[in-house]
Amino acid sequence: MTESGDTPLTIYNSLSRKKEVFEPIKPPFVGLYVCGPTVYGDPHLGHARAAVTFDVIYRTLKARGYKVRYVRNITDVGHLELEETEQGEDKILKKARLEQVEPMEIVQRYTISYHKGMDAMNCLRPDIEPTASGHIIEQIELAKKIMHNGYAYEVNGNIYFDLEKYREDEPYGELSGKVLEDLQSGSRDTAGMEEKKSPHDFALWKRAGESHIMRWNSPWGEGYPGWHLECTAMSTKYLGEKFDIHGGGLDLQFPHHEAEIAQCKGAYGHEPVRYWVHNNMITIDGAKMSKSAGNFINLEQVFTGDHDKMDRGYSPMVVRFLMLQSHYRSKIDFSNEALGSAEKGYQRLMSAMSLLEKLSVKEFRAEEGEALTDVEKEIQDACSRCESTINDDFNTAQTLAAVFELTAKVNALYNGQLEKSQISAALFERMNLTMKEIVYDILGLKADSGDDKDGLTDELIQLLIDIRLEAREKKDFATSDKIRDDLNQIGVRLKDDKSGTNFEIDR
Amino acid sequence: MTESGDTPLTIYNSLSRKKEVFEPIKPPFVGLYVCGPTVYGDPHLGHARAAVTFDVIYRTLKARGYKVRYVRNITDVGHLELEETEQGEDKILKKARLEQVEPMEIVQRYTISYHKGMDAMNCLRPDIEPTASGHIIEQIELAKKIMHNGYAYEVNGNIYFDLEKYREDEPYGELSGKVLEDLQSGSRDTAGMEEKKSPHDFALWKRAGESHIMRWNSPWGEGYPGWHLECTAMSTKYLGEKFDIHGGGLDLQFPHHEAEIAQCKGAYGHEPVRYWVHNNMITIDGAKMSKSAGNFINLEQVFTGDHDKMDRGYSPMVVRFLMLQSHYRSKIDFSNEALGSAEKGYQRLMSAMSLLEKLSVKEFRAEEGEALTDVEKEIQDACSRCESTINDDFNTAQTLAAVFELTAKVNALYNGQLEKSQISAALFERMNLTMKEIVYDILGLKADSGDDKDGLTDELIQLLIDIRLEAREKKDFATSDKIRDDLNQIGVRLKDDKSGTNFEIDR
Repeated sequence: MTESGDTPLTIYNSLSRKKEVFEPIKPPFVGLYVCGPTVYGDPHLGHARAAVTFDVIYRTLKARGYKVRYVRNITDVGHLELEETEQGEDKILKKARLEQVEPMEIVQRYTISYHKGMDAMNCLRPDIEPTASGHIIEQIELAKKIMHNGYAYEVNGNIYFDLEKYREDEPYGELSGKVLEDLQSGSRDTAGMEEKKSPHDFALWKRAGESHIMRWNSPWGEGYPGWHLECTAMSTKYLGEKFDIHGGGLDLQFPHHEAEIAQCKGAYGHEPVRYWVHNNMITIDGAKMSKSAGNFINLEQVFTGDHDKMDRGYSPMVVRFLMLQSHYRSKIDFSNEALGSAEKGYQRLMSAMSLLEKLSVKEFRAEEGEALTDVEKEIQDACSRCESTINDDFNTAQTLAAVFELTAKVNALYNGQLEKSQISAALFERMNLTMKEIVYDILGLKADSGDDKDGLTDELIQLLIDIRLEAREKKDFATSDKIRDDLNQIGVRLKDDKSGTNFEIDR
Repeated sequence: MTESGDTPLTIYNSLSRKKEVFEPIKPPFVGLYVCGPTVYGDPHLGHARAAVTFDVIYRTLKARGYKVRYVRNITDVGHLELEETEQGEDKILKKARLEQVEPMEIVQRYTISYHKGMDAMNCLRPDIEPTASGHIIEQIELAKKIMHNGYAYEVNGNIYFDLEKYREDEPYGELSGKVLEDLQSGSRDTAGMEEKKSPHDFALWKRAGESHIMRWNSPWGEGYPGWHLECTAMSTKYLGEKFDIHGGGLDLQFPHHEAEIAQCKGAYGHEPVRYWVHNNMITIDGAKMSKSAGNFINLEQVFTGDHDKMDRGYSPMVVRFLMLQSHYRSKIDFSNEALGSAEKGYQRLMSAMSLLEKLSVKEFRAEEGEALTDVEKEIQDACSRCESTINDDFNTAQTLAAVFELTAKVNALYNGQLEKSQISAALFERMNLTMKEIVYDILGLKADSGDDKDGLTDELIQLLIDIRLEAREKKDFATSDKIRDDLNQIGVRLKDDKSGTNFEIDR
């Protein structure tokens, strides 16, 4: 495993409400389950934040040498519109009815859209991506087991989890801190509610009405699974009855994750998860994102700027950078100002990463001194903090701060403000490796021009820079100015300094 | 629906062995089912040919105004190594054992790889992409139905299709022309074979041995579905018990598609499919592609050239162009020569498509003449043939020939060999629309530099061309030659002709 200083990897466990040292159940293996999207619409900033949060966790664990099995589901059946009361139509089914297509066409369209968005955000794909509709048998078996253990009952082809019975044996609400008695009991008067022994009992299986087209045969007649059941069935199928990390957005703590705990204890007699991890939410200009408030911005709109709230578009890497600037347990507010300032930060970082490539280890001091110079101490300290901050519950905000101390050194080394002889080659090499591992492998950032895989764009711009230089040497300022102005017009800004000419692509 | 001349759309039906006029069961809807990959390895040229074949069919049907539901499955369980005798290990399971991962990790890895390859080939994603493991209940229900109708029997937790019984009521082998009595009876001596009433009976459901980890509960104990069952279960679930087109590679006719017909007749009492369509195979330098022959080339290797048999890499669009140069029912031989010549053809076509953009309809003759000029007749005839050849059982080879007659006109118009006044604006517009619909929408070709989404590369090269021109006008040949040479070095070739300077990117 990569050297990570003296700071052990810690994770904030939502269940214990404290940071704990990470100790996997069966090292070097780590099981990571994350609640994925319900695929009935294009992915938005909330999806992206969850994906980026657990992408960084996945990347960090892999960089630390763990063999991680990352499972993230696709919810394609069973997620009803009004989650808490389990009323309303199936989200996929409603969209399919609106668009007059088969529900699985909706699933296909928005699964592709989700993948496209998260690929753009440079999130690694999970190792397994199971679908709820693909695990009906597993869900039926699980419901049977819970019934067999006395924690579920059948009414009229519906199977409900028996919360009263469960609470006789186990606490309920420990994760979210919710107390059932304090909760509104939902819409008692709607059909189906009077079937339940207790208003908060949730459905494991629902009878399909005649017009319900997503339906499967079961021991209780034709029906479809309740939303909470899938995650328990799929997480334990692929990671075992007890696994290391379960992640998801904070909005899923109740009722979804409480239900998962209850289902697992009801079936297997124990907590399924060692570390529960939740990412915080996103606000837009300080307000909660919602369709009625008109501030529901999907990812594509952020990238293109095609939304009333957006002044212009921002690249996926800028959006990722903005997310990384906050710790995953803090709220993030999205605004044009925040995006604009994240863009500047991202460009500063990438510019330093590109200058880093131009520094040659050979120019640094071959021998290590008896004592570290002051600047060496600063670099060593910043390198250590890069490691220790990411180990400290994945505190990417602090990690970026440490990285920026190193970029300042890179800039100073490149423009000659800092003498290369002041730094040993060995320490430069450590800085070089640390920056690359943190920025590319762990934070998952990359150059935006990375789309231009073969580097042709860079080569063409360099050719224009060379021609401009020659024109200037020949005092042909008409040509040299024309090149600068024409490049400017197509979004390539040249920046001259004493080390030469660099460029930024701004489109 | 798009005007398509007087030629009705015809499809060669493998079952009737003749071309038939295409008449959908319930116009304007068309159901299209295609056998997708078994995801245990990276996609190769064979996968790409099937995908391109049915992509062109899908695109043509959509261009003709049909509302097509295109379903292509992912086989992630049940496909055994020795297909005909149903012996050997499950392909996914074997790969998972070799790589020491969970089978669904294999499925995820190679599903992503398949999508990446087919996306690169510019194949549209299907509307629904169901997985075999996601439809176990549907397969169990189907097996029950076939048993109920007397065409299947259980032995020891295995369910076999009863071919003898079936053949008392229905013909078998009509699609492939195979006669059971002529076939080798497979490895009679291996375990399981003596259970069968007849050696060619195929499994609908197999009992899972103790070590078999892909297993589901069923009325016959824990097991997994036979390979043929999934396609019948999924095609009829999403397209109905009788649908329009079933496609796949010619190698799937027997036993896979014969089994599908038997299963469907056994369950529903009728043929499931109106038009059976099969694409022919690919050879490499004249030989069948096989791992033992060392000529098994996967798509990525074709793109990069990283294979002993490849002189260099070819772009996905060149590979697609090569495939389109043959009719889908003909064999295609891949070789460096064939790829090199396809590349030239593809570049010639794309160069003309780009010149087409530079021709303005305003420069053509405003009024239509009383009689067509000779050149107008030629253009009109080629336009009609673009439509009629694709309507003629998707004969892309002849369609490309017709398109190339039009590209010759475009080139001649652009370089002045052909006077624009000879052609009416209306006819130019027809040519313009026909070429774009055929080349982009139906044949699914696109410019290779399409990866450079924002066109920056083109703009940079244009800027260099302009600077070179100015240098020449100033008689500064040192600079103009330098630009041409430097561009050449990075793979951009400038071509001067009397109309100006064009370029080709050659990397």
